[in-house]
Amino acid sequence: MAVKIAVLKETRANEKRVALVPAVADKLIKLGAEIHLQAGAGDAVKLPDSAFKNVRFSADPLELVRDADVVASVQPPDASIVNAMKPGAILISFIYAHKEVELTKLLRDRHITTFAMELVPRITRAQAMDALSSQAALSGYYAALLGATHLARILPMMTTAVGSIRPARTLVMGLGVAGLQALATARRLGAMTEGYDVRPETKEQAESLGAKFVDTGVDARGAGGYARELTPEEKEKIASVVTKHIQQADIIITTAAIPGRPSPKLISKAQVDGMKAGSVIVDLAAEGGGNCEYTQPGETIQVGQVTIVAPLNVPSMLGEHASELYAKNQLNLIELFVKEGGIRLDWTDEVVAKTALTHDGKIVNEAAQKLIA
Amino acid sequence: MAVKIAVLKETRANEKRVALVPAVADKLIKLGAEIHLQAGAGDAVKLPDSAFKNVRFSADPLELVRDADVVASVQPPDASIVNAMKPGAILISFIYAHKEVELTKLLRDRHITTFAMELVPRITRAQAMDALSSQAALSGYYAALLGATHLARILPMMTTAVGSIRPARTLVMGLGVAGLQALATARRLGAMTEGYDVRPETKEQAESLGAKFVDTGVDARGAGGYARELTPEEKEKIASVVTKHIQQADIIITTAAIPGRPSPKLISKAQVDGMKAGSVIVDLAAEGGGNCEYTQPGETIQVGQVTIVAPLNVPSMLGEHASELYAKNQLNLIELFVKEGGIRLDWTDEVVAKTALTHDGKIVNEAAQKLIA
Repeated sequence: MAVKIAVLKETRANEKRVALVPAVADKLIKLGAEIHLQAGAGDAVKLPDSAFKNVRFSADPLELVRDADVVASVQPPDASIVNAMKPGAILISFIYAHKEVELTKLLRDRHITTFAMELVPRITRAQAMDALSSQAALSGYYAALLGATHLARILPMMTTAVGSIRPARTLVMGLGVAGLQALATARRLGAMTEGYDVRPETKEQAESLGAKFVDTGVDARGAGGYARELTPEEKEKIASVVTKHIQQADIIITTAAIPGRPSPKLISKAQVDGMKAGSVIVDLAAEGGGNCEYTQPGETIQVGQVTIVAPLNVPSMLGEHASELYAKNQLNLIELFVKEGGIRLDWTDEVVAKTALTHDGKIVNEAAQKLIA
Repeated sequence: MAVKIAVLKETRANEKRVALVPAVADKLIKLGAEIHLQAGAGDAVKLPDSAFKNVRFSADPLELVRDADVVASVQPPDASIVNAMKPGAILISFIYAHKEVELTKLLRDRHITTFAMELVPRITRAQAMDALSSQAALSGYYAALLGATHLARILPMMTTAVGSIRPARTLVMGLGVAGLQALATARRLGAMTEGYDVRPETKEQAESLGAKFVDTGVDARGAGGYARELTPEEKEKIASVVTKHIQQADIIITTAAIPGRPSPKLISKAQVDGMKAGSVIVDLAAEGGGNCEYTQPGETIQVGQVTIVAPLNVPSMLGEHASELYAKNQLNLIELFVKEGGIRLDWTDEVVAKTALTHDGKIVNEAAQKLIA
């Protein structure tokens, strides 16, 4: 009996990605899997059903998942899908249990083994499964483009017959994968770039991309490679240094997200009010409420003479490449447990153990256990 | 008596630019001019009235121009403005007489001396007055950004933990100022770039920007540095070579405009239908109807799996820099005739003579004379 993998068509608003691309389907088939794809799943990223070879299609997602061993998606599926899955089946998707408490309980109670893509540990061996990073890199690139298109000035220096235009200043706040890619892209476009992060070890990375590093003297390293939440005193110290750089910027890109927590407010209303006329903020942390006090998630607003762009689901705006990378991340995870034509879950494997959210009627992730009593 | 220069607030749809910026106002005042600015003229480009020093304001454009010696604007003014101007006054603006036949007759009949910015001769001495070029450079830059933001793929090569993404291919058709800037910008973003133009002398320019040149073997040099219109046979020969490159492209930017004529159709419906799924056309020639047969000027449309973006007034999307360059172009032209506190028109000056559209009750531009009997 071949392992049966079902891939869902996404249904959430603004979600254009798909968890499977043709090249990955081919590889899964070579692993001995049988692929069932919901009809039209790739339409939004210009992957018509005809692009997938040796794949079976079903228009009905409940029928699709009913006897599937593995169900794959980008966003957490609806409860109806989970209810239709067979007990003991595997779900592989972004979940974010803190936002999906009811769904997580249902996955537990239905005895689904859930691998939550956001839980992939940030260790070297798991880099090829790290969808948070692959999607963040695309978001950072796109944030720089959004900044450039909303600015009524150009980024590069331009020498014209009536004199030179000076390069625009781009400040990136939060130098994770997204922030570094934003710095790199703004620099490519010819901007003068500055990077800021509470983790001092990001200095070297910013500088290697041709950016200046804004040094505030506050060290805010937290667990798991994320920044910890700051004290009011630390925030004030940072603000006094950062305000100067905010006031000089043409474009500011903010990327500071803390999983499971509201996004930290890096830019106050007063700081926005002091910005140059015509400048632009692109707030990549809009999903968590945003890094700017004025941010309205999902909206582009004018506050005085400043434009604040706060897009949701930025990877979907680059849905073709986002799907390709996401599908490959999932493939690498699936290869850990689909072996010799069957499913073998090795719970001594750190990646398997840490990525699991629910298994065998239990919530197995520690943070989710605390959250969901 | 100081020369009185009146600068209008633009009223046309999508026009955000303004014909004066503070630095240019200062220079005109040093020339001995008195500046009257319509209140709020710079608002759309974040230049509030308070940004202009030693300038007088009026909310009423008719009052503003009534005793002005020079009236400056970006777009052709309304007839009511021309009717309010004093006979013998100078108007300096884009006009495009073939689109503004009635206005041109009125300017003639009202004895206005009109300098049409689009008529500035393309000679070395006049480069600093060449607003067509300054605005086209900005349009080309922005076209590349529009292509990149509408594409659901990234432009640069990106090395990730799950393999490399190959750089996108950008084809630019029409290698004038806008096309060359589009090539340069797409290249900055990391795309593989190809340039195409019927004028073979553009090959070297494209190559100097790191682009490949698409050689079709057709030479279509016309008068005044523009491409001439092609015969059906020539079009067919070009199409057969160009189709291959169109089919490989992720982004195509077209820039082929012929002043006073409909834009040549460089991309047929059949060629669009053969393009890669997900690819994007940015048609900068939309004002003249567009270079693509499917183009709908001012709209972004989906044709099958291809997105066609056909923006109008692209320089306004970069209104801050566009206004700065335009105002400086006008300043350099004004300096030819505002001298020693008065107006001295030297009709032996090639730039003065060729830029003039109407003077002393006559249409003085040859092409406009033929058009308007």
